[in-house]
Amino acid sequence: MESATQSPSLSFETSPDQYKHWKLTFDGPVATLAMDVREDAGLRPNDYKLKLNSYDLGVDIELADALQRIRFEHPETHAVMLTSLKPRIFCAGANIFMLGTSTHGFKVNFCKFTNETRLGMEDMSANSGIRFLTAVNGICAGGGYELALACDEIHLVDDGSAAVSLPETPLLGVLPGTGGLTRVVDKRKVRRDVADHFSTLTEGVRGKRAVDWRFVDKVWPTSQFKDGVVQRARELASLSNRPASGPGITLGPLDPAIDGDTIRYKYVTGSIDRTKRTCDLTVSAPDSPQPATPAEFLAAGDQAWALRAFRELDDCLLRLRLNEPEIGTVIVRASGDPEAVLAVDEALAANKDHWLVREIIGQIRRTLKRMDLTARSFFALIEPGNAFAGTLLELALAADRSFMIDHPDEDNTIQLSVMNRGAYPMSNGLTRLQTRFLGEPDSVDAAFAHEGPFEAREAAEAGLVFDAPDDIDWDDEVRMAVEARTAFSPDALTGMEANLRFAGPETMETKIFGRLTAWQNWIFQRPNAVGERGALMTYGREGRPAFDWKRT
Amino acid sequence: MESATQSPSLSFETSPDQYKHWKLTFDGPVATLAMDVREDAGLRPNDYKLKLNSYDLGVDIELADALQRIRFEHPETHAVMLTSLKPRIFCAGANIFMLGTSTHGFKVNFCKFTNETRLGMEDMSANSGIRFLTAVNGICAGGGYELALACDEIHLVDDGSAAVSLPETPLLGVLPGTGGLTRVVDKRKVRRDVADHFSTLTEGVRGKRAVDWRFVDKVWPTSQFKDGVVQRARELASLSNRPASGPGITLGPLDPAIDGDTIRYKYVTGSIDRTKRTCDLTVSAPDSPQPATPAEFLAAGDQAWALRAFRELDDCLLRLRLNEPEIGTVIVRASGDPEAVLAVDEALAANKDHWLVREIIGQIRRTLKRMDLTARSFFALIEPGNAFAGTLLELALAADRSFMIDHPDEDNTIQLSVMNRGAYPMSNGLTRLQTRFLGEPDSVDAAFAHEGPFEAREAAEAGLVFDAPDDIDWDDEVRMAVEARTAFSPDALTGMEANLRFAGPETMETKIFGRLTAWQNWIFQRPNAVGERGALMTYGREGRPAFDWKRT
Repeated sequence: MESATQSPSLSFETSPDQYKHWKLTFDGPVATLAMDVREDAGLRPNDYKLKLNSYDLGVDIELADALQRIRFEHPETHAVMLTSLKPRIFCAGANIFMLGTSTHGFKVNFCKFTNETRLGMEDMSANSGIRFLTAVNGICAGGGYELALACDEIHLVDDGSAAVSLPETPLLGVLPGTGGLTRVVDKRKVRRDVADHFSTLTEGVRGKRAVDWRFVDKVWPTSQFKDGVVQRARELASLSNRPASGPGITLGPLDPAIDGDTIRYKYVTGSIDRTKRTCDLTVSAPDSPQPATPAEFLAAGDQAWALRAFRELDDCLLRLRLNEPEIGTVIVRASGDPEAVLAVDEALAANKDHWLVREIIGQIRRTLKRMDLTARSFFALIEPGNAFAGTLLELALAADRSFMIDHPDEDNTIQLSVMNRGAYPMSNGLTRLQTRFLGEPDSVDAAFAHEGPFEAREAAEAGLVFDAPDDIDWDDEVRMAVEARTAFSPDALTGMEANLRFAGPETMETKIFGRLTAWQNWIFQRPNAVGERGALMTYGREGRPAFDWKRT
Repeated sequence: MESATQSPSLSFETSPDQYKHWKLTFDGPVATLAMDVREDAGLRPNDYKLKLNSYDLGVDIELADALQRIRFEHPETHAVMLTSLKPRIFCAGANIFMLGTSTHGFKVNFCKFTNETRLGMEDMSANSGIRFLTAVNGICAGGGYELALACDEIHLVDDGSAAVSLPETPLLGVLPGTGGLTRVVDKRKVRRDVADHFSTLTEGVRGKRAVDWRFVDKVWPTSQFKDGVVQRARELASLSNRPASGPGITLGPLDPAIDGDTIRYKYVTGSIDRTKRTCDLTVSAPDSPQPATPAEFLAAGDQAWALRAFRELDDCLLRLRLNEPEIGTVIVRASGDPEAVLAVDEALAANKDHWLVREIIGQIRRTLKRMDLTARSFFALIEPGNAFAGTLLELALAADRSFMIDHPDEDNTIQLSVMNRGAYPMSNGLTRLQTRFLGEPDSVDAAFAHEGPFEAREAAEAGLVFDAPDDIDWDDEVRMAVEARTAFSPDALTGMEANLRFAGPETMETKIFGRLTAWQNWIFQRPNAVGERGALMTYGREGRPAFDWKRT
């Protein structure tokens, strides 16, 4: 498998004028995202054709971008309708030949990104006042149905052939791994035996049965479908608390400067040491006046630090995941003036109900979740000149460990803000502080009761940092911790971190990333799926799969 | 890996007079389970030596048996102290050379059984009035510490060398897969960064630091250790609501008759069709008078149907898992007089607070969980003459699908009893009916409000069975369903079932079997662990592991 094709270095930035696969249109409060995948415009066009509105990572990068545009550029959008421009085909799911020719690591990271995008849609519904409806106009299979499952409502045309299905198990010997199994039983609460039956049917279900079994919300006669779904989308739009009209802000390109192994954005710098297999990742505090009112946020647009810094961090994490698989340990720093971060936090908190500020907070929340879910070890280093305060302190709390130098001469402190109280919940629904102090919940209150910044020893005593070595021990301790980390099995670290980072309650989201994804990754490694005669490899080719029948 | 050594056909029955590795002694209300593993008495003694109180499946089968003896034979036991008879060594965990020479499937099923045994200890603490204390008298590493973690309290001697550790990641490139990571952050609620640090330390932690970091409950000076832990075990025993004295009942051998591919117990028969890769599994209702009072239960002993039938089913499921990996589909039937089952249910419900009846209900609960967690497809066939009533109906509710013949001439009904209301929760903490009707909770009440038995069509309408074909379609429908099932990828089915069976809330138990186990299984498949130069294979041999550094 490891000899399978590796994608070339990927960028995650795009814009509507560059879309190859989606049409994004606006009609009053309803945006329509219509899938029209160009067969020959996959990321590796020589390896596969994107037939039947099947998708690869490039298609999903456009989808993720479109969601960002709707969030930030179109406050007047109150509902989104997902549909397809291809007659009688909604979406055939992730492209099988793409999966078959991808490395294990690429498959896993592709699924992770698509999962994050779909959870991002549910995040919009829950937090942004933007409801989603899928208008399923034809075949809706596998990842296609999983996309529909991420919407608030699924509407299906009853034309005698349009159907929803999850044929991965019977056809491909893998799971519907983009949340499908979890959403069927946990979100739509389909009965487990019905879900079991459905997940083994290549043809799926259609018509009234699809409604009776809870797989879709409504079926429409062909003649009423188009008008009916638009009408329903308008009704969903009417539930929104977004403003009736714009303006929004424009998301310009991030344009990072890439120089050898260093990527430099305005506020984020990532620098790779290939020998040590580490990445130094630094987020800078604002160094210029920041908006304090809704009008100022609107005027600042995509240049507001809170938005720009976390868009940059998001992009940097994605590039690291997909383009730099061998870089296992990330050294996180926050630099600059912590007071500037705390001032931003005050402005975010004071204006949190304004649509744009709400979206900026959402961007930070999702980026921090992306970090939680990134399969790399994160060590935060808190040194004099650090800006680990409020929102940026979340980076240290998201890290697997944090080290804070206890310096006799130089100031070195961290500080909480109101934004650590609940603005950025993890996938498990708790704040990072609540997760951290699951065994001693009083420590959360104690941390907030503390007046002013924490010196290193105070921070260690309060449990906010892992360790606070003095300046004499610092270099050795940090060096040894990083060296030890980089020497461990990367697979064991991935599994260990996936289990230790998410203590406490489980949610649909943690189920998707824990249970479902872990099983899918196991299957993605098994000869029955990816061996020479595995189901994923033989699909659509000569010959049938040959299974080792042993159950595990 | 698949060429690694497969264990010979395994039996799961043993008794204290046959123990090779444990000493079970009783002193008033405290039982002591002392580990003293015989190096040369592993299940495959030519492949590995069980040094340093390391264990293999044989050691764990004895532990599981000892727990059963305590439950049923020793009502006067109110607390259990786990310790070791080897000086300065508590337990070094699962034997690495055993793991290194086992097939993937064996490793996975070995871990599943050991997990069930440890959860069984927590079940005893929660439900049986039997608390557990570990007296850690020396090295307590990996699976050794995981055994301690399953106890209510962990007491550690402070002799300068005794320590608890989870060195799997740094030493072996795998996870502590018997609940260790989950219990550290979710049961003991160790802070995630501390847990991260701990899980990468080969030497573990000891002394006061082990207490401060919540890894153990108390450390004792060497001079006070022995008396101190006994004293504390007595205190724990005093919390019990078990009777002050016996008699208990004796668990005799099950002595199944094995004839070719058929195993016949008194109430359970399993019969394998190797061509179809199916197993017909039939549980029979009682055919003789059953106990109705505590005195009668005591008199009936291990011959009471409710106990014997589920001990047999448990044994049969374990043999299927370990000895018959290629048999992927189990056809479940219940036969005999449903009224006889309902009468047993009445007796169980009426006497549920009596210690013995409580244990019998516990046996049924744990066996049904074992079925939920068995990686085989279960199809229940409900035909005239069936006994799917009350407790036995749980078998159909645990199945992935159930088919009930709608016969025009012959009686064919199913029926609920009070025992379906909450006596047998699944790992997710819900009953099988609650899990089934997560999307329509009223259906649970409606099912209980129904008077008398359900005819096939009523059962299908109530959602209690998957389908109710008539007698003309029956043979074809069932045959096709089974044929389809047995043709799918066994790995995809395992992953699919693991995701569809446990809708609803997650618990520490579902986290262990979902998240932790799935990641461990993935790692158990990866070259970094099990390849020629993988960490699990090179441990203790010449040369160091060679890792593919790519993070996934």
